[in-house]
Amino acid sequence: MPEAQLAMARPIIHHRTQEFRDLMTETRQNLQRIFKTRNEIILLAASGTGAMESAVCNLLSPSERALAVVAGKFGERWVEICQAYHIPCSVLEKNAGEAASAEEICRKLDEEREIRAVLLQGCETSTATSHDLESIGRRIHQEFPDVLVVVDAITALATEPLETDLWGLDVVLCGSQKSFAISPGLAFLSLSPRAIGKMESVTSPRYYFDLRKELKSQQKGQTAYTPAVSLVAALNETTKEILRQGLDQVLAEADLMARCTRSALFALGFKLLSKSPARAATAALPPAGVSASELTKKLETRFGMKIAGGQGDLKGKIIRIAHLGYFDLPDMLALISAIELCLTEMNVEIEIGSGVRSALLEAARIKAPALSDRSAAAR
Amino acid sequence: MPEAQLAMARPIIHHRTQEFRDLMTETRQNLQRIFKTRNEIILLAASGTGAMESAVCNLLSPSERALAVVAGKFGERWVEICQAYHIPCSVLEKNAGEAASAEEICRKLDEEREIRAVLLQGCETSTATSHDLESIGRRIHQEFPDVLVVVDAITALATEPLETDLWGLDVVLCGSQKSFAISPGLAFLSLSPRAIGKMESVTSPRYYFDLRKELKSQQKGQTAYTPAVSLVAALNETTKEILRQGLDQVLAEADLMARCTRSALFALGFKLLSKSPARAATAALPPAGVSASELTKKLETRFGMKIAGGQGDLKGKIIRIAHLGYFDLPDMLALISAIELCLTEMNVEIEIGSGVRSALLEAARIKAPALSDRSAAAR
Repeated sequence: MPEAQLAMARPIIHHRTQEFRDLMTETRQNLQRIFKTRNEIILLAASGTGAMESAVCNLLSPSERALAVVAGKFGERWVEICQAYHIPCSVLEKNAGEAASAEEICRKLDEEREIRAVLLQGCETSTATSHDLESIGRRIHQEFPDVLVVVDAITALATEPLETDLWGLDVVLCGSQKSFAISPGLAFLSLSPRAIGKMESVTSPRYYFDLRKELKSQQKGQTAYTPAVSLVAALNETTKEILRQGLDQVLAEADLMARCTRSALFALGFKLLSKSPARAATAALPPAGVSASELTKKLETRFGMKIAGGQGDLKGKIIRIAHLGYFDLPDMLALISAIELCLTEMNVEIEIGSGVRSALLEAARIKAPALSDRSAAAR
Repeated sequence: MPEAQLAMARPIIHHRTQEFRDLMTETRQNLQRIFKTRNEIILLAASGTGAMESAVCNLLSPSERALAVVAGKFGERWVEICQAYHIPCSVLEKNAGEAASAEEICRKLDEEREIRAVLLQGCETSTATSHDLESIGRRIHQEFPDVLVVVDAITALATEPLETDLWGLDVVLCGSQKSFAISPGLAFLSLSPRAIGKMESVTSPRYYFDLRKELKSQQKGQTAYTPAVSLVAALNETTKEILRQGLDQVLAEADLMARCTRSALFALGFKLLSKSPARAATAALPPAGVSASELTKKLETRFGMKIAGGQGDLKGKIIRIAHLGYFDLPDMLALISAIELCLTEMNVEIEIGSGVRSALLEAARIKAPALSDRSAAAR
């Protein structure tokens, strides 16, 4: 986003000034509106993994058990972090593309009453699979009121509907580089009052990620350690832009991009990887005989378009198309067209134009607000 | 620096690409030249405190004792980090403005043979005091070959001479916002082969700051977790600029700024806080009856010039003037002139012009290379 890029280029303001305090305070308030929460927001000079670690080591002592929902690579990271801190961690494992249900999670919590926190992704980015946070959050809150719900929403925030307070999500964490479309290097998380209460007694070692100290500073618009000033300035611009467009509009645009992309890929013979496809990204297996890696590479060399491949076991098997950040429907239509051309050049038999046509039909069906309406809303 | 600011504004390159690998590799190599080392360099998406913590938790197990040199606020941070990780920490405490000598440190190491690492600052920024890293590094290395030497060089690097390899400094760590003059949010550190060897057996919990994992990734131009891409791009520009000017020239300019500032402040009736004044910054007590806070505030409101005050016990008692980053001698001369005007407006009796004259005499005495020579050297 040009405003955020320009903010990055501005001279760096000193962080022990009123100017920076105002910037921090406004940014934290904007994030509250995007997180749909009255909870405290903490910013960290770190990438998303740092925020995941901070949630674990501030909320769990080595004697306390966690439950990690592992539906892909980022779910596995919860387990690794718990291991690093000697925190026992039970695992609810799902096959690639499958989401965990509230029922399954609550069954686990019922079986293992010593579990103190559930760690999961809002969207498991490695498989582009979305978990039903609403039912998960509400049911855990109702049936297991002592269990904290910790959500990595790095790709879910500002793509999927997410009601931090209504659904009882104790920690929601995010990074700067996805929906907020600025450089990685800044992470932020919301903390419910009971999460804050819990932090006080937790014995896991932490210093840079000690959220007790950060909370005290950030409530005054400061940070415990030197903040990533330019990234905060850029994030401030992006949060303003999201609120200016309206969060509902941003979510609707992600949904529109995701639906149209799925429709196009289906028409072109791809299979969706996910049984609970996310709005943040679409993961798909190419038609038989088509190499995902070749297609990805061709899109880049031929058109300079970057889509992702698979990670871990899925490497070389899938393509992943992002619908978040500084993208809109026309970008997706251009990408789908480019995919059609690449497939044709790879001698894959497709009905040329069928992908774009499907996407257009889907877009027409959804009757998204016209661009002029959106521009009007933006004012 | 304009080149770095423009790099911040550029579209963000994806970090799993050859383009980013090349950027990382070049930046790490440039840092090696600035650190004067063949040791491995690790970049972290964190501020300097994160790098301090990573050094502690990767090099010391909870059973192993550290020695922290505490000559001010940043020395205290070593003790706090050790406490957070349950690492016993002995302290060599110095009064504000005093440096620790190699003799004192070695005496401590001799008395407490179980100490496994010495943690110190190259320059204690809170008092603008420089430790003699050369004699400290060499003597520890010679007399206590099993003790690791860990240096926070956040303000010392590229201001003071620093020979990582020649002086046997096992870890040297730095941040992006001081000599490198870009936004905070990126930290980097060098690791000697014996530090790398030690990491393998250390049991302190760590995940985001696990340098074993980072090392493996960064040797391939990658990072274990998403890197702060734009900050890496900006750092790349600054490292190139420092090497283009020549490190010796950059050090000489800091020295020149520091000497002229000290001379000017002395002429204006200030007293130096430090008995071992750093090149990175000058800390001084104003003449009797002059409020440091009032002077600091006046410089800002009247001229938009920002100098620092004291921290902790020194709050309100001293001024601190930085000589690092995007500053040169003319900036210092302008600042000294402004200080003279502010003092006059505060009805402090000074011989107007005496500060600048002293600074100029000092500059003339040092016979710094003329600007034209420096420009020639820069080419």
